[in-house]
Amino acid sequence: MSDTRVKFVLDEPAIPTHWINLMADVQDPGNPLPPPLHPGTKQPAGPDDLTPIFPMSLILQEVSAEPEIEIPEPVREAYKLWRPTPLYRARRLEQALDTPAHIYYKYEGGSPPGSHKPNTAVAQAYENAQAGIKKLTTETGAGQWGSALAFACGLFGLECEVWMVGSSYDQKPYRRSMMEAWGATVHRSPSDVTEAGRSQAEHTTGSLGIAISEAVEVAAQNDDTNYSLGSVLNHVLLHQTVIGQEAIAQMEMAGEEPDTVIACVGGGSNFAGLTFPFLRRVIRGAAKTKFIAAEPAACPTLTRGVYAYDFGDTVGMTPLMPMYTLGHGFVPPPVHAGGLRYHGDAPLVCGLVKQGLVEPRAYRQNETFEAAVRFARTEGVIPAPEPAHAIRAVIEEADKAREAGESRVILFGLCGHGHFDLSAYDAYLAGRLEDPEFSEEDLQAALASLPEAPALA
Amino acid sequence: MSDTRVKFVLDEPAIPTHWINLMADVQDPGNPLPPPLHPGTKQPAGPDDLTPIFPMSLILQEVSAEPEIEIPEPVREAYKLWRPTPLYRARRLEQALDTPAHIYYKYEGGSPPGSHKPNTAVAQAYENAQAGIKKLTTETGAGQWGSALAFACGLFGLECEVWMVGSSYDQKPYRRSMMEAWGATVHRSPSDVTEAGRSQAEHTTGSLGIAISEAVEVAAQNDDTNYSLGSVLNHVLLHQTVIGQEAIAQMEMAGEEPDTVIACVGGGSNFAGLTFPFLRRVIRGAAKTKFIAAEPAACPTLTRGVYAYDFGDTVGMTPLMPMYTLGHGFVPPPVHAGGLRYHGDAPLVCGLVKQGLVEPRAYRQNETFEAAVRFARTEGVIPAPEPAHAIRAVIEEADKAREAGESRVILFGLCGHGHFDLSAYDAYLAGRLEDPEFSEEDLQAALASLPEAPALA
Repeated sequence: MSDTRVKFVLDEPAIPTHWINLMADVQDPGNPLPPPLHPGTKQPAGPDDLTPIFPMSLILQEVSAEPEIEIPEPVREAYKLWRPTPLYRARRLEQALDTPAHIYYKYEGGSPPGSHKPNTAVAQAYENAQAGIKKLTTETGAGQWGSALAFACGLFGLECEVWMVGSSYDQKPYRRSMMEAWGATVHRSPSDVTEAGRSQAEHTTGSLGIAISEAVEVAAQNDDTNYSLGSVLNHVLLHQTVIGQEAIAQMEMAGEEPDTVIACVGGGSNFAGLTFPFLRRVIRGAAKTKFIAAEPAACPTLTRGVYAYDFGDTVGMTPLMPMYTLGHGFVPPPVHAGGLRYHGDAPLVCGLVKQGLVEPRAYRQNETFEAAVRFARTEGVIPAPEPAHAIRAVIEEADKAREAGESRVILFGLCGHGHFDLSAYDAYLAGRLEDPEFSEEDLQAALASLPEAPALA
Repeated sequence: MSDTRVKFVLDEPAIPTHWINLMADVQDPGNPLPPPLHPGTKQPAGPDDLTPIFPMSLILQEVSAEPEIEIPEPVREAYKLWRPTPLYRARRLEQALDTPAHIYYKYEGGSPPGSHKPNTAVAQAYENAQAGIKKLTTETGAGQWGSALAFACGLFGLECEVWMVGSSYDQKPYRRSMMEAWGATVHRSPSDVTEAGRSQAEHTTGSLGIAISEAVEVAAQNDDTNYSLGSVLNHVLLHQTVIGQEAIAQMEMAGEEPDTVIACVGGGSNFAGLTFPFLRRVIRGAAKTKFIAAEPAACPTLTRGVYAYDFGDTVGMTPLMPMYTLGHGFVPPPVHAGGLRYHGDAPLVCGLVKQGLVEPRAYRQNETFEAAVRFARTEGVIPAPEPAHAIRAVIEEADKAREAGESRVILFGLCGHGHFDLSAYDAYLAGRLEDPEFSEEDLQAALASLPEAPALA
């Protein structure tokens, strides 16, 4: 292997054949993760509670205890449109940082929608099509998830209806156009076409929580319509594990083992996708790896939220989930990392934070854009604002390595490009990007919306 | 090899080590291509005429008769950020068209600027940096070339100043932001910072020809500043031949030989990049391949222009070049394929059309977007409007194959994605996309700007 190698590519047959189900690793029979609860009875929610909005095949994945789940062939076939994705060594960034650290990144922005999201979108669209469903509804923040589902529905002949968070709808008109180019219908959320949207009309910038309520409402009311979630749930995290499996193979090609793996966290699917295959090795005692979850300081779920039962949406239609949360009534400020504007996080990721296997860190908006511009001017790719949080953490770790005079191997997830976020770059470069804080008063006000529910240890 | 294979990837060492110089193949000593002429003396232009705006190393490439030119190692190193690029078989499009044709596409949209343009931008930036130049100026139409040069200048520590065609500047604000994110300065053309721009102020939508005049003017007036052109010239076409060389290797992986190779033509660099390595095989008698050059009906240089000496820019500062042209005074209507809005075409590509080796075809704006949406909904990638012209030609050929009941192998160049062209998709989907014609009166009016110069056979 040449010493100057910067890109590690896998051939089509290297697309994983199975997803990795980390639920099988963390479900200690003596100390299981707390179950989701029915929003009305507050008793453990069962598969039947989910059938109005999900097909049984995905519900079975959601509750599966199998360590691996086979990827259906038509899904692998769809993956070939952009997978395997490349892994890069960021040699130019290393030089610019003057760091002894070796920095690698797994790049998911080459998919047609430009992010990691289609990894689960095609799996969900396929299973729904198999179940005879005609239409999928969903919410989208930055537009990356809505684009991915629009793309995936097109591949499997489904209609697609998307509620897009108001602030993103206004900031990113071309994300809407992209969804429409793939044939989807897009609403600005809160919309007036749902009860949930009308009830939240005063929150004009919207939030992921409100948009979820709208999409779930329409799916629950129509037999031939299901709902599709882009993050948070176990089966969504599961589908993303193709990322980390490929990265393990590519790090072996590079002849290195990561000391630290870093990814941003909004709902948790990008973080899970990259880290779970590495986490399994740590849990099984086969590796020692540090994991860092990077989130926005304006929506600091993992770093400042409480570990408690809370609704996944704003109106309170979903099961109560055990997670770090700021309260389901919290509407985050309209930071440009729309995909990270969520009051909670995936219960499975939260459990790993609770267990101390994952370290969360929060970054302000301007320092993340500073990191993003530094990355763009060295490595070329203009990152989406979400993975810019991971890049900020990478630079922090690379600086520490220089100060310590130690070589370290850092791997991070570059989960999407920023082609639809350039108005934010404009604002940053012009010095007029907002940099919202999150005060103790903000925290107490946010937590006031927590529902009554059993306490968590 | 699996029968279901859709993606053919090459590893980093497969990045070509040499560019292919087709000038060596077409320069029949008894019947050479006509030389460019000095704009004042109208005598053959020599290397010295170009030194005010180009470094000698690129001038030597421009006039080289060597069949192959070695790629400098730092340029190959920069190529690793996105090369080799993937080749796809468009199985889903084939199915949707119900055609027996096998359709392949070489996808250049995965580069950081999102098109094939950085293949020459990094080569030009490198050679200028080697020559001690501090700043490069250029024009850009759709913004793809300007983005590529901004990106490349960043890699080699050069300043970059870009004149962006007015209509594109207005339609694609985020292309400007992208250039600025990489550190470039961007002007709307015609601008008031150059003599050329002020003289063309009445052409408010601008044109590539005007923007070239502005960028050349600034480069010619400053010793530490050179000009960089994104197409048309021999050395630019040369740099793009990495595309076709990789495609030959990938078609071999697929076990097929293309019957037809199709690419869009604006200035000619994308067309040349894909086709020249294949054309060399035809010229040397090693293959029989049909070549189709697709252009907009609103700017029908190859299909309706005359073969004559004309200026490359609007004001008349460049050498007179032997090419198909509509007249350098022609300002094309503001169709969204900004990269194809040019009154002329590369002399080398024009020579091949003149010799009958390349067949030109022109398509209207709405039929190209129809083809683009069809492609997006089957293959995923949303194409830029420029390669949508090639896709329109591909569908025409695939339909013919079905009607003839013959399997044919078609390869085309998907030279860029359409992430910055979604307002045009919006307009198309809403049924309000303009579809400008080009009448016989338009042609006569355009040709009136042809300069006095020696006639061409």
